[in-house]
Amino acid sequence: MKIEILTIGDEILSGAITDTNFAWLGDQLWSRGYELHWHTSVGDEPDKIEQALRSAVGRSRAVIITGGLGPTIDDITLEAASKTFGVPWILFPEALEMIRAWFVKRGREMAPKNEKQAFFPRGSTIIPNHEGTAPGCYFVFQKTDYFFLPGVPREMKRMVDEWVIPQLEKVDTEKKKYAFRFLRTFGLPESGLAEKLDDMDLKGVDLAYRVSFPEIFLKASALGPDAFDLDRRVQEVADEIHRRLGNVVYGEGRETFPAVVGKMLHARGETVSVAESCTGGRLASLITDIPGSSNYFDRGVVTYSNQSKMELLRVPEKTLKEHGAVSSATAIAMAQGMRRMAKTTYSLAITGIAGPDGGTPDKPVGTVHIALDSEKGTIERKLFFATNREWFKHLVSFAALDLLRKKLLHS
Amino acid sequence: MKIEILTIGDEILSGAITDTNFAWLGDQLWSRGYELHWHTSVGDEPDKIEQALRSAVGRSRAVIITGGLGPTIDDITLEAASKTFGVPWILFPEALEMIRAWFVKRGREMAPKNEKQAFFPRGSTIIPNHEGTAPGCYFVFQKTDYFFLPGVPREMKRMVDEWVIPQLEKVDTEKKKYAFRFLRTFGLPESGLAEKLDDMDLKGVDLAYRVSFPEIFLKASALGPDAFDLDRRVQEVADEIHRRLGNVVYGEGRETFPAVVGKMLHARGETVSVAESCTGGRLASLITDIPGSSNYFDRGVVTYSNQSKMELLRVPEKTLKEHGAVSSATAIAMAQGMRRMAKTTYSLAITGIAGPDGGTPDKPVGTVHIALDSEKGTIERKLFFATNREWFKHLVSFAALDLLRKKLLHS
Repeated sequence: MKIEILTIGDEILSGAITDTNFAWLGDQLWSRGYELHWHTSVGDEPDKIEQALRSAVGRSRAVIITGGLGPTIDDITLEAASKTFGVPWILFPEALEMIRAWFVKRGREMAPKNEKQAFFPRGSTIIPNHEGTAPGCYFVFQKTDYFFLPGVPREMKRMVDEWVIPQLEKVDTEKKKYAFRFLRTFGLPESGLAEKLDDMDLKGVDLAYRVSFPEIFLKASALGPDAFDLDRRVQEVADEIHRRLGNVVYGEGRETFPAVVGKMLHARGETVSVAESCTGGRLASLITDIPGSSNYFDRGVVTYSNQSKMELLRVPEKTLKEHGAVSSATAIAMAQGMRRMAKTTYSLAITGIAGPDGGTPDKPVGTVHIALDSEKGTIERKLFFATNREWFKHLVSFAALDLLRKKLLHS
Repeated sequence: MKIEILTIGDEILSGAITDTNFAWLGDQLWSRGYELHWHTSVGDEPDKIEQALRSAVGRSRAVIITGGLGPTIDDITLEAASKTFGVPWILFPEALEMIRAWFVKRGREMAPKNEKQAFFPRGSTIIPNHEGTAPGCYFVFQKTDYFFLPGVPREMKRMVDEWVIPQLEKVDTEKKKYAFRFLRTFGLPESGLAEKLDDMDLKGVDLAYRVSFPEIFLKASALGPDAFDLDRRVQEVADEIHRRLGNVVYGEGRETFPAVVGKMLHARGETVSVAESCTGGRLASLITDIPGSSNYFDRGVVTYSNQSKMELLRVPEKTLKEHGAVSSATAIAMAQGMRRMAKTTYSLAITGIAGPDGGTPDKPVGTVHIALDSEKGTIERKLFFATNREWFKHLVSFAALDLLRKKLLHS
């Protein structure tokens, strides 16, 4: 079933706010087997809204409209819709009651301006809004289903879940099924992944790359009548991707990179501590984004100054003087000092040059040393990432965590 | 001058990739006085592309189209455009030369499939692409200017800068000027800002709120014929906002929150160190996002375990036992221990419950204590933020930095 989205609001087109509703709606629709095939954004102008609403007839079976249901003079979506549909714009007492009740529940009185939000095209079905003042409405015009929803994401989302999707299920006579697998990768750029996957026989399965720096997600999906067949096909594609990429695929579904590493540590009853220089706390923050990380993360230090490397990690002054703060020797000394102090199973250490200043011909901006210490000894890697400061910190933190992940995989 | 954007590509509508071109183009157009008033996204389907191209006539003076100029069978934008304009789709030898030259420059030979990228609607003007293989084109149809550009952001951007904008300047006979001020705030929610600003006389200046959690940016902008007048008006609005919001406005333009605080520290030759528990390194990472932060940031510790609080910060075991790890007493002891050790001008300490677990009736999830120590003594604040774990870490880190900012402002 073909569906389009119409986003209404000057603030989207002027860039004052980003349209996050569109991406969310798209995910909801595709994952339920609906085809989102058209998207329009227009400002709060009656003639444009009318043009956009009218042009959907014949093109789409259903239209989901967000925005312009507020109480202010700019909010004219439903007035314009009434004109488009050729019906009067009238007060719905049931809607007025909903709005009043919303205010009463919060111990406030409804302002006169909110009365406007109870006006809809005659013949509409009201869509309740449990999260805000603006009810939505549903209207059928020339065999096309129109769903009018507020632009506030929280309100819109709940109304889609509770009202729009169930209604779409009812009107959809050609319902398709949808199946997908979501694979999460780290360690290869898009071109590197493509090189390994390009000659795969996809058997009608769609394979999309979604870059979420520094990770790349792969989504294998298919739409069709037979759920069992779809599921088998996407699973075959996912299996083949696993075979080709090996441990570049670190997980599936919603589990994030630090969550996957954290789960491995937790399952073994092991712990980690971190000593950071150029990543400045980014690695510790990544690890502690995960609920329950206190089970396996003991502590971290951010040693920006040489003094702090000596005091907190017992890095010998000699090492710093002879090899410099950005060196294998310092990274190793940091990791060993950290683990000795924290008494954790593993310790990770990072020292490098995030830039944009501080580079030398010998050690240009982007140079970084990562070390992993455990009772079996210390592993050290020298890496080089030429990118901006924030991305550098993020990427290096991932690389350090990946060193630990591979250690855990192989022991 | 009214302009619309048409984004072409299945991968945008299916959510496989995010349309970042739109936001960038919008910024470019608005900041040059053009009004972006309509945006359409469609898939790679000829009839839809034709419908979208045709409907722009009369509605917009110019249309910028991105996507569908590639060498594959899916890329059909220019074939569809030829049909729309009622002209043949023909080979442009000059374009073929450009594509060949692109490959030659990289020591490669042009693949046969790339020849397709040299076909355009008859009567087009070729727009050179110095960053990739796909040239674009410019076509005037029924008094509407169409600019066809590739979807690859780097290629598209350069072509807009070098070709599209200069051409728009030429055709625009009603050129407007644009002026804006960008104010950055922290510490009040959107409703709190609105309450303080709602009754302002904006004198025709547009005031937009842009939420970038946990900050809110305000953009005062105006479009008109007289640059001097516009500038005066947006400045007056900006001045009035400063008067009404006081130090809730922390800066203007591009300077970020940690950069503003860092600049204040650096100007005074002062330093800071941080001791974090529930923010897990987020505060240190925020501070070290700024190039040159090593001038004023000495070190940080992430003390997740009680053991680490005692070892690294000398928090007395008695304090932890009597008051708990999340308490005023512990926050103060952490800050004082940190500053004593690091010998910095200031130290910040944070201890709290990020959740989702670990809350008690006494100390629910979201409870946090922040302390700031300096030679003048210790300030401590108890705050409460009921939000998800990642937002909590981010918001609390900002709140801690804001405590330091206000200290610096008042001393």
